[in-house]
This record gives sequence, structure tokens and C-alpha cells, in this order.
Amino acid sequence: MPQIDRTPSPVDSRPHVVIVGAGFGGLACAEALGGTNIRVTIIDRNNYHLFVPLLYQVATAALSPADIAEPIRRIVSRHPNIDVVMGEVTGIDRTAKRVELADGSFVPYDRLVLATGSSYSYFGHDDWAEIAPGLKTIENARRIRARLLMNFEQAEMCEDPARQKALMTTIVVGGGPTGVEMAGAVAELARFTLARDFRRIDPRTARVLLVEAGPRILSTFPDDLGQYARRKLEELGVVVLTGQAVESITPEGATVGGRFIPAGAIVWGAGVKASPAGSWLGVETDHSGRIPVGADMAVPGVPDVYALGDTAALAGDDGKPLPGLAQVAKQQGEHLGGGLEASLLRGQPLEPFRFRNRGNTAIVGRSAAVFDFGTRKLKGWFAWVLWAIVHVYLLVNFHKRVLVTMQWLWRWATYQRGARLITTDRPVSAAESVTSPHGGSAEPFRGMKRGQG
Amino acid sequence: MPQIDRTPSPVDSRPHVVIVGAGFGGLACAEALGGTNIRVTIIDRNNYHLFVPLLYQVATAALSPADIAEPIRRIVSRHPNIDVVMGEVTGIDRTAKRVELADGSFVPYDRLVLATGSSYSYFGHDDWAEIAPGLKTIENARRIRARLLMNFEQAEMCEDPARQKALMTTIVVGGGPTGVEMAGAVAELARFTLARDFRRIDPRTARVLLVEAGPRILSTFPDDLGQYARRKLEELGVVVLTGQAVESITPEGATVGGRFIPAGAIVWGAGVKASPAGSWLGVETDHSGRIPVGADMAVPGVPDVYALGDTAALAGDDGKPLPGLAQVAKQQGEHLGGGLEASLLRGQPLEPFRFRNRGNTAIVGRSAAVFDFGTRKLKGWFAWVLWAIVHVYLLVNFHKRVLVTMQWLWRWATYQRGARLITTDRPVSAAESVTSPHGGSAEPFRGMKRGQG
Repeated sequence: MPQIDRTPSPVDSRPHVVIVGAGFGGLACAEALGGTNIRVTIIDRNNYHLFVPLLYQVATAALSPADIAEPIRRIVSRHPNIDVVMGEVTGIDRTAKRVELADGSFVPYDRLVLATGSSYSYFGHDDWAEIAPGLKTIENARRIRARLLMNFEQAEMCEDPARQKALMTTIVVGGGPTGVEMAGAVAELARFTLARDFRRIDPRTARVLLVEAGPRILSTFPDDLGQYARRKLEELGVVVLTGQAVESITPEGATVGGRFIPAGAIVWGAGVKASPAGSWLGVETDHSGRIPVGADMAVPGVPDVYALGDTAALAGDDGKPLPGLAQVAKQQGEHLGGGLEASLLRGQPLEPFRFRNRGNTAIVGRSAAVFDFGTRKLKGWFAWVLWAIVHVYLLVNFHKRVLVTMQWLWRWATYQRGARLITTDRPVSAAESVTSPHGGSAEPFRGMKRGQG
Repeated sequence: MPQIDRTPSPVDSRPHVVIVGAGFGGLACAEALGGTNIRVTIIDRNNYHLFVPLLYQVATAALSPADIAEPIRRIVSRHPNIDVVMGEVTGIDRTAKRVELADGSFVPYDRLVLATGSSYSYFGHDDWAEIAPGLKTIENARRIRARLLMNFEQAEMCEDPARQKALMTTIVVGGGPTGVEMAGAVAELARFTLARDFRRIDPRTARVLLVEAGPRILSTFPDDLGQYARRKLEELGVVVLTGQAVESITPEGATVGGRFIPAGAIVWGAGVKASPAGSWLGVETDHSGRIPVGADMAVPGVPDVYALGDTAALAGDDGKPLPGLAQVAKQQGEHLGGGLEASLLRGQPLEPFRFRNRGNTAIVGRSAAVFDFGTRKLKGWFAWVLWAIVHVYLLVNFHKRVLVTMQWLWRWATYQRGARLITTDRPVSAAESVTSPHGGSAEPFRGMKRGQG
């Protein structure tokens, strides 16, 4: 395979910034450089920017994947200086200053921004990933959706009460915002949306367990907000197990605090680890795989390379690393984009980044959310409305804002969800997973094939 | 595996109608029986009813799958006498009068309605199915969408002009309404939606070929409407090849009329064959696999079994079999549902079915459609608006009507499409399909894996 330079115009004399990853941070950085006299190339494995904070709504049949994803090319198309390469990064040549792609080609850079995000960490149990998917990709969200809905279909057909109970049990691992949101949404799906649609089972008897190893849920929030969230979850029927670690996960269920709980679906929302960007550079990372960076987001010892968002470990005002939040990545991207423009075009030094907390939020369910602005706290109905407004506002595209708002209003008014589809492209037929009494559980997240009719 | 009766209440003394397939026909039949003193069981492989006529809009990134699919349970949940079983039928025991499912269980019937629809026929070349998917399932629509979009991504990265041209070539096989709609939509996707989003390629130079073996496209429509559609397609840049059969299909392209045309995507919309319902019964079928039925839709020689829609061959007033249209299936389902109620509860004989043509329609593109009402014909802008109104009206769910209308209005106003996602659950990475120069074409419809960023 010949070495091909993927840059659109290799003879272009403008400085070239390469950004790996089109998440919140990478995209904000690119947009800050839009319209400048700098060439920008965004590299991403996907063709779309994904609004990850709403993925749990795809997993619980409320939204469609396309509602929360927008083509990267579309977002930056108004800036002719920004180019998009869909490809998989395999390494970085620090000496030649170029990014290497899986197809053998490369992209040379003058400055490189690593915004490659994070994935779930299974604490050394990588085999759990297939059984208990996390909420980071559209594919996983769709798998979780198919599994949750399929479990009710199988329970309806099931003759064995113990197996029926297992199928109607969902375990959510991790009591952070993602786990809380997921547990609340699954409980609402069963309790309201599916309530009247079955003849043999009562979906309202479905069990949802939220398992948190630490002493309380929403540990990054003030204590009273965590308590409020717990109370609201329990009102929805969620069993909150704090101070209990998941010891093992099998296709039949999970062992929590020494007790085996049979379950039809397990969703992972616990530890997070950074992408392998650190190993591409050959630099030391912290225990979560994050690259320690300077206040200007430069990677120490590697000239002209920067890291931000979940990829980077940067201390905040309190000395602790900034949290892995969209708003952190976004602010860093904007800051770095502006800084690189000043540096490349006017020779100015990069300014140190300071995070401004816009408020930390989590939604528990219908009319229940929490907001923590540092100095102020909010909970309940008003926090819930604010949560919705903020999330709609942050959706990239005007059209999608309207679509998502409409679907939320409709769901709020009717308790119904618009995306109750059991579809995955994995070649396992519904018949097969219904066949053996434990067929569905043997491979909880294998897909179901399309059908007749 | 013990033989389990899947009927919810086997001791129920009410007569039991079993309907296989929740397409337009099966669902209409079930709804006609809703609220009566008859037990109804719908069996389908999927958990949703799919609005197949709009699948081409999913394949061309205009709508999301959930916009045109609705859970069967939801649709019939207001009728407690209707039960839904998600399962795969493997056979029918005519003597014991029961439907056998793949999981070894069965459903006994007093009357059985077969509404199992059709799939694409590859005229003995079943290996073409993997290369050139047809538009009958959500999974295939999503695969086609991923491939079309991925081809442009690969063309942007491609150094070889011949390969680039091939990637930007789409062949649509079959000049019926589905082929015409698909060809027009792919042309509009390239010409308008993607036009400004690439830096090295000009998507407007993409080629779309519509191949029809017969002398003209839209052969079931009056000649002038077919000519109008052809003219409109050609204005959109579609090359219409009539009187030319597809002789072979390989992952690199298709041989049409003796000439090999390299192509990045091939979409099948040619022959149709009925589901295997005929073989379940062990009855003779016509050349398309359809079961010849009497005017009351009863299967001759098989007591208490009926077939309708694409599963059945029933002559219309002109002596020719009724076409495989949603409106035919729907009218048949309504008619048979009412007839079965009168027969089972009041002992009345079934009335013969008569099809009332509500108008045959096909859409070519923006502001261009054709309508044939038999006595009246329509084409152009007004036909296009009427097409949209009819299709929105026919969507099952009020919420989805509003969503689809909004997305259409937005698309009409902006030329943009809301569902431009390259996602499939097949475990082949984007990197792999980009790696080898012909990687993408080697398996044109294998999926792409999710990515970083």
C-alpha cells in the first residue's frame, strides 16, 4: 500500500491543524478555526457527530438515532477551510509530524488536536462488554433497545415464572448521571409505555436495579440532590443498591454484593477510560488512560500536540481533574481553536484554559431532574424543564431541535415512545432466541433478524 | 421441547381467528375484528408494522426507520380481544388446525388468515441478494443508506479516477414504482443534499442508472405517465436504460445489455415472489409463489384458511390478478375481517371481494409524481402534493404523521436530509472497507463499525 497523503491540497502553504475526533471538543475546536486562513482537517471513524448525552433516549425507544446525530461534513460545510476525513487513526509519527490511518495513508500536521473521547472501562473484565453494553455508540443503544423490548416479548411467551421474572429484570451498573437516567427511563418504559400492550404479563411488575459501588448515587452532585434522585427513582419502582459492587456478569445475570440476580438485560454505565491516544504518542497516562496536559492543553514533551476533553487530564480550580463532561470538552475546544489561530497567524502564546461551570445536570424521569450550578441548586419540575431546554438548545441542528422537542412533548402528553423497534443487523433470528428456554439470555445482546408480515 | 399452546387463554370458548403477518392486509383484518366477540391472534416475525412504501426514504437518508414503523401491540392495544405473538411460522398443520412456530410451540385456529407478503425474487440468482439488496426490510434500507453514503466518503479519499467514478455510480434494477422512486431519490441525494459537503469530489457528478428489462418504465401506468416519469428522471440526471436486462451482478458492478458497468451500489427492485405460505399448506401456487384463492379469499381445498395481499392470486374485474399494492391488501383485510365476523358469529356466508381502485401513484422527485385513477390521470406538482397527503394520511400513528410531514417540509425547504448516518451492526470496520483499493466494493453491503471521536 503506497503512502498516500490524505490532505486535500498538499501544496497549500497555509498552516494545517489536524483534529482527531468530532465529539463536542473536536467540533468546537474546528468551528473556532472556521473561516480563518488555517487549513483544518477533522478525522473521525464515523461520518456523524453524536449527541451522546441523549443516547439513553435511543436505548429506551424515545428517540431515533438520527435525531441525535448530524453528519460532520454538514456541520462544517459552510467553512471551505475545514476538510473531513472518515478514517481510523492507528498511530502518530511525532518526528514526521503526521497522523497514520488504518488504510495505510497519513495526514501531516503542523498542530495536532487529540479529542478522541473515552469508552467504558470494565475494570479488567473486557468479556463483560459484550453482555453489558455501555451507552457510547448508536449501535450499542440500538442493541440495548432491541434487548429491552425483546425481553418483554419473550416474557409474554414464557411458561416458566422464574425465567419470566428474570427477563423482566434490568440491571443498570453505575450510579452516575448516565446510570440514573437509564434506570429511570427503563422504569418509565415498562411502567407507562408498555403497560397495556401485553396480555399475559404486566410490564409494570418489571424490575429495574441500579447498582452503585460507592456509598451514594450522583456522587458528583451535592448530597441532597443525590438523595432526591434516589427517592424519585424509588417512586418509579427502581431498586437502588448502593455500596454494592458488581462481582461478576454472565449472560444469565449479575452477582451483586455476593448475591446472584438473574436478569434479561444489563447496561453498563460505570467506569470510563480514555481512548488510546496516549499510546499513539507513547506518553505516560493517568489511571484512566488520560494524557496529562498543561494549562494550555499542550502535551508536555510532544511539540505541537494538544489533548482535550475526555482524552486529557487537566486540573480544575480545585486541583482535581476536570470531569468528563460535554461542556468541559466544548469550552476547551473553543479555547484551543481561538488560541491556535492566534498562535499560528499572529505568533501569540497560548493562554491557559479555565473552566466555567455552566451547571451539572441529570434527569431522573418525568418532571424530575437535578441541577447543580455550584452556588445554586435546583431540583424537581423546574429543573426538568430547564434540563430539556438546555439539551434541545445544545442539539446541533435547528431541524433536529424541533423534531426532538415535538417527540418529547408527544411523549409527555401520551406516555408513548416513538421508536419501539426491535431491529439489529446481527444475523441471529428472533426464532432462535425464542427457541431454547434460555436462548435469549444465552446471548443477551445478540440481535434479532427481520421478519415476515 | 414440549408442545406449548401460545394462545393466551386456551380454555376460552370464543371462536379464534389467527392472522399471520401484520402488514397492511393482516392488520386491516385484525382491526376489522377488534372489539368483537372473537379472539384474534396476530403472529409476526417483527414487533412492528412497517410502512413499506416509504422505505426508499429511509434508504436515502430522508426518514428514520422509526418514522415509518409502529409496534403491532401498540396499534391493537385498545382491543383486548386481539393478542400479538412475536414468532416465526414454520408450518401449518391443516388436520389439527394449528400454526407451528420455530420455537416448537403452536397456535390453534378456527379460521386462519395468511397475510405474509412477498420478498424480492432474483430470478434464480439468489447470490445477488447479498450484493443488491431490495427494499422490503428496515435492515436492508439501513444497509443501502450506509453504502450510498460510504461510497461518497470513499470516493473523496480515492486516488484512482476509475474507482472514484465506480463508487459514485448507483444502479437501480427494475423500472416499477419502487425503482423509479429510489433512482429519483438517490439522484436528489447526490445533486442537492451532498452537493457542497465534499472538497475533492463533486457529488453532482454521481451517476444513477435505472435498468428496466421491459420496453418502458412504470409499465402498469398509462404510457404518457411513464414517459413523463422518464423525462423527469432524466432531468435529475438519471440514465434510464429500458429493454436491457441485468445479466450478472458482482461486487464490482453489473452487466447490463452485454456491457459491464462498475458500480459502488446496486439496489434491487425487480421481481417479487410471495412468502412460502403456499408450501406451508402444501398447495399449488402460481409462478410468483402466490396462492390462488376464491373470490371470498378462501384457499380451495383447505377448510377455514384464507389468503390475501401479496400472498394471494385473485383476479380483478379485468381478469388479471390484482396487483401487489398496499391498497389491495388493506381492502381485502377489511373485507375478510368483516366477513369472518358475520360468518363466525351469525353464520352468514362470505361475500366475494371486489377491489375499488383508489388510484395508483409513484413519485419521481421534488414536485414530480404521477397518479392514475383509471378514469383520470394526474402528473406534476399537484400529483406530488396529493402523493404526500395520501402517504401521510396512511401512516398509522398521528404522531408519526406530524413527524414525517415536518421532515418533508424541512427537506423541501432546505434540500437537506435528516438521517445521513452510516451505521450498521455488522462487524466490519470502516477502516477495513477503506483499506484495500477495492475493499468497499468487495462486499458492497457489508456494514461499517462505529468509531472514535
